[in-house]
Amino acid sequence: MTTERIEHRACFGGWQDVYRHRSEVLGCDMTVGVYLPPQVEQGPCPVLYWLSGLTCTEQNFITKAGAQRYAAEHGIILVAPDTSPRGEDVADAEGYDLGKGAGFYVNATQAPWASHYRMYDYIVDELPTWVEADPMASDRRAISGHSMGGHGALTIALKNPGRYRSVSAFSPIVAPTQVPWGQKAFAAYLGDDREAWKAWDTVELIRQAREQLPLLVDQGDADEFLQGQLKPELLQAAAAEAGHPLTLRMRPGYDHSYYFIASFIGDHIAHHAAALNA
Amino acid sequence: MTTERIEHRACFGGWQDVYRHRSEVLGCDMTVGVYLPPQVEQGPCPVLYWLSGLTCTEQNFITKAGAQRYAAEHGIILVAPDTSPRGEDVADAEGYDLGKGAGFYVNATQAPWASHYRMYDYIVDELPTWVEADPMASDRRAISGHSMGGHGALTIALKNPGRYRSVSAFSPIVAPTQVPWGQKAFAAYLGDDREAWKAWDTVELIRQAREQLPLLVDQGDADEFLQGQLKPELLQAAAAEAGHPLTLRMRPGYDHSYYFIASFIGDHIAHHAAALNA
Repeated sequence: MTTERIEHRACFGGWQDVYRHRSEVLGCDMTVGVYLPPQVEQGPCPVLYWLSGLTCTEQNFITKAGAQRYAAEHGIILVAPDTSPRGEDVADAEGYDLGKGAGFYVNATQAPWASHYRMYDYIVDELPTWVEADPMASDRRAISGHSMGGHGALTIALKNPGRYRSVSAFSPIVAPTQVPWGQKAFAAYLGDDREAWKAWDTVELIRQAREQLPLLVDQGDADEFLQGQLKPELLQAAAAEAGHPLTLRMRPGYDHSYYFIASFIGDHIAHHAAALNA
Repeated sequence: MTTERIEHRACFGGWQDVYRHRSEVLGCDMTVGVYLPPQVEQGPCPVLYWLSGLTCTEQNFITKAGAQRYAAEHGIILVAPDTSPRGEDVADAEGYDLGKGAGFYVNATQAPWASHYRMYDYIVDELPTWVEADPMASDRRAISGHSMGGHGALTIALKNPGRYRSVSAFSPIVAPTQVPWGQKAFAAYLGDDREAWKAWDTVELIRQAREQLPLLVDQGDADEFLQGQLKPELLQAAAAEAGHPLTLRMRPGYDHSYYFIASFIGDHIAHHAAALNA
């Protein structure tokens, strides 16, 4: 796989790098942020995959979350990929919530999206294979994300029992089949058959989970998308009904921004470190 | 003074705000980031003024430095102003290193700059007066900054004995009269009389300092501007000659970016907190 390191910056005793690598499954070059904590010099470190939200690239998380401090404390590699395939031959749409920057971590089945929009396969298989080819990275994995990326983290963990030691999310879209963001994206990527959408919806997946991996979710109660798009009460009800362990923390005053993520990413990384280093 | 709060976001138990206020001395509206730590609810908190570098607005520091965590720990208000006057009637120039985004924290004396470019007076007098009009802010002040803003912090502290309890800088321009960035800006803002430039040069000012305020400086040794623009060895020599207390820490591998600032801003805020809360 062709790989080029395009950024390399000392950060909290380790290195914040950005790579461009060829993705065969997406049919394009992808950029990905990789934070290497100082502990990689002593041996392989576990990896936390971070999935970003609508409109983001790999840059948002690595420049704004302040996560490197905690990764350096706990000896965890942070891998932050882009949010969709990119390039001139990749389909796109008007609006920020479909097409580039809005891959929704699914495998599209409909034209014109199916030829490139396979972010699920990229995140679950191709990206970890690329990461773990480096002897600095172990195969102990955790996954987290924000908003659309919180949806990605939760669905991917639920669909792949045993593959991740821990999962968490900030302000996730928990029921995309029931809210405008998800309905628009799924209609385009997956077509009109709403039964097929359920395979990509946390609230649906939790009902049939084969593994009781605890879910950790933080949600600001001043989030401008709380009522219309996020609806954490649907996750709470589904988890209660299924008996699935869920810690949902409503955070008074916090909104949907990276100031919210920065305030609690230390808690999340400590949570993942406990599972990854156990 | 007309003031409008244009951002208000919960962050580490406090609030990251952005204000737009009228500056009489600059003759324009200015934006300024203000982080209020949770401790303001118990009484007035001291203030750390942060001066940003070339091309920056108030946004760079508040989104990328991760400083709020430490300000919340120590109970310090962070005030991060824009780096130049703004607006359609404000003079500008080609290039990133003169005009808007490049005020250099001086009072310009030359046309067309003199009518708006008075960042020194703004930072030293008008901005603190505006800040301290709020009962949440005390008049205990510290000052820090990066690159052009490190130059601003050091010169302003040296020119105003007793006004700041502590000063620090990241990758500062310590001798603007001797390097291309400073020579271009000073020729434009201050004119051809190089003697007049010396009043705005840290290395010159340290020779006549009336106060032995210790200087704390961090500098990455992989900084792309180290040799051509920053020259910390000139500061070290001037401080040694003048017997002025200086802690200059060269940081192996670090560059000029906010990843460097984020890595050590916690140390700087602890340094300021020790002086401010003494």
